Amino acid sequence: MPVLSKIRLLTPGPTDVPPAVLLEMAQPIIHHRTQQFQDIFAELSQRLQRVFRTSEPVLTLAGSGTTAFEAAQINLVKPGSKVLTIAGGKFGERWQDIYDTYAPTLGITENIKLNVPWGEAVSAQQVEEVLKANPDISVVVLVNSETSTATASDVKAIAAVVSKTDALLLVDGITSVGTMPVEMDAWGIDVLVTGSQKALMLPPGLGFVGLGKRAQQRLKEVKPTGYYNLDLRKWLKSWANQDVPFTPPVSLIRGQRVALEMIETEGLENVWARSNALATASRTAFTAMGLELISKSPSDSVTGAYYPEGVTDKALRNGTRDNHNVHIAGGQDGRGASWKGKIFRISNMGYVDAGDTLAALLAIEMELIACGCKIKPGTAVAAAGEIFAKPLAV
Amino acid sequence: MPVLSKIRLLTPGPTDVPPAVLLEMAQPIIHHRTQQFQDIFAELSQRLQRVFRTSEPVLTLAGSGTTAFEAAQINLVKPGSKVLTIAGGKFGERWQDIYDTYAPTLGITENIKLNVPWGEAVSAQQVEEVLKANPDISVVVLVNSETSTATASDVKAIAAVVSKTDALLLVDGITSVGTMPVEMDAWGIDVLVTGSQKALMLPPGLGFVGLGKRAQQRLKEVKPTGYYNLDLRKWLKSWANQDVPFTPPVSLIRGQRVALEMIETEGLENVWARSNALATASRTAFTAMGLELISKSPSDSVTGAYYPEGVTDKALRNGTRDNHNVHIAGGQDGRGASWKGKIFRISNMGYVDAGDTLAALLAIEMELIACGCKIKPGTAVAAAGEIFAKPLAV
Repeated sequence: MPVLSKIRLLTPGPTDVPPAVLLEMAQPIIHHRTQQFQDIFAELSQRLQRVFRTSEPVLTLAGSGTTAFEAAQINLVKPGSKVLTIAGGKFGERWQDIYDTYAPTLGITENIKLNVPWGEAVSAQQVEEVLKANPDISVVVLVNSETSTATASDVKAIAAVVSKTDALLLVDGITSVGTMPVEMDAWGIDVLVTGSQKALMLPPGLGFVGLGKRAQQRLKEVKPTGYYNLDLRKWLKSWANQDVPFTPPVSLIRGQRVALEMIETEGLENVWARSNALATASRTAFTAMGLELISKSPSDSVTGAYYPEGVTDKALRNGTRDNHNVHIAGGQDGRGASWKGKIFRISNMGYVDAGDTLAALLAIEMELIACGCKIKPGTAVAAAGEIFAKPLAV
Repeated sequence: MPVLSKIRLLTPGPTDVPPAVLLEMAQPIIHHRTQQFQDIFAELSQRLQRVFRTSEPVLTLAGSGTTAFEAAQINLVKPGSKVLTIAGGKFGERWQDIYDTYAPTLGITENIKLNVPWGEAVSAQQVEEVLKANPDISVVVLVNSETSTATASDVKAIAAVVSKTDALLLVDGITSVGTMPVEMDAWGIDVLVTGSQKALMLPPGLGFVGLGKRAQQRLKEVKPTGYYNLDLRKWLKSWANQDVPFTPPVSLIRGQRVALEMIETEGLENVWARSNALATASRTAFTAMGLELISKSPSDSVTGAYYPEGVTDKALRNGTRDNHNVHIAGGQDGRGASWKGKIFRISNMGYVDAGDTLAALLAIEMELIACGCKIKPGTAVAAAGEIFAKPLAV
């Protein structure tokens, strides 16, 4: 490291954690069967409801976002019904795999896979057509922000379609909740899931499941096939008593309370506006450097571009890491595409501000130039600076 | 605070402290009469020597940079001699005041004040002329980087002049040591002083005095007029035993050891190159926005500009603070000028990287525009980005 560059974790999760949150997590462990913990947990649960934009329960599970989404998936399928799983990237494909695995256990008659090309979003009309043709679908799985492709889907429009049917809409909000507008109650999202290590500014370790009224009703109708982490009924029952069914990650929960307090102090709409500004700036800067964006329906949570001719994944990402302390992500392989080595991505989520994004863009530009790209030095920062210098659209 | 902007302390001291240093200072207090403390102190002293570029002792005093400089001033004057105090700003004037105050105690026959206009630097020739006309000067006081005017003086050239005489050169390196090249031994600086809260990345509380061979000899010839903090002989004697004459600020000393380790890991020359890049970028950005720089001989430690017509100190500095969390400094009043309300300054010292400077420049530009300045949005960041995108001159 020749010259000081502060460490910037601009991978799309885990993301940087604010010092105030790190310090809170360093506090001595308290026992979870105490009033002190219950007060913290109750406050956390209320703050989660405001971030999820719901008056319904938001459960706090120990585990990753995947743990939480898996729990949602396997608790809500009507035996003898179909599921509709929409994918246009790595994570959508993961939820498809989960239902393939659990199909016999859950009594799924068909896992209808609605796939769109990576980098594109499904339309509400496509979803509507499948639902009309298959009235026996009991669960629809949709990724709001597909991290692998930096692509956002129109949850509001799709929720409007699904809520007219008996199917429940399970939304993977892992990189959208706390990054861009997601209105669980107003849009009629039945289940909204996120993880702690993205926009919620915590280390990995907590998953959150918001359960709408229709989902709570479905829980009563479906028999549990799992236990503890995988039986949401236990969690929902404890939640009503401001409690958890087994020993929770106390430190993470303390930290999450502080992180959510920071988000609410900034104002959730302001957080959305900030992520939008960071995303707009990074997309504009990428384009100004002559890069092609990977998404035709870009998400604000993450920004991705194809490597130009002659730039390898190793050269760019090792370069930004070793020469600038900027950690960015590469591409992923899946059924719909093989993007390993072909694309790179930076995060606009959580504890990131304009200075961080400017530093990251500077690092990327310098390494691209070092790889032989013809870019006028300063192009990326100039393009982003012009965006940041304008008032934010809140 | 509408939108997240990380807190950036870009005042020219105190400056931001790295989290690793803050954590070190949060360690439990150890007693200072222990081997553990002595080992830490010995390592600190060796690291200080390398940062001061000297093989002579560098003393660690409890107090601010002013405490340390005052101690240097009052311990080294030959009774019945003159002192030469060079000033072109607030701090040079402070050292003049100190000798005025102590003149009777120390037996100073004349305090010769060599003043240059604020924002300009004294020439070696000017110093040489005064020394030739006054062979009974025993101490010359020079500010290396005058923080109030963002102005650097040519210590190397002046040291070459002073070292040919019997006078000792006392250099205020409070904002230069760890920011720009200062070669205590190679240039023949007799006394070099700095504080912990500038480029050395610690909170305020420690002052450092490097004592060259001629200064150590002078200490023996001059009787002490002060005690403890103000009698450097006591400190020098303890230093030889890897010790301090009275209870030291243990936590600060621990933190300083870690901060100096960070500096040496980065490489002192690289730290200098970084500060130079930050300074060049901020000067270029200020000029690009149409601002006039306050210094004709700019220091890399701090960058200052006059307020343009219609911009008040309150509007700009409250604006950067309240809207962007960027803390910058205003102007100071002194005998040579009244710069309160007329200028502002940002620091390039210590734990600052390109991302921080870009964020500060963005904040300043936005607030200038809000005050009615005609600046194309993004100008400052574009100008700085062009500098940062080029390889650093190490």
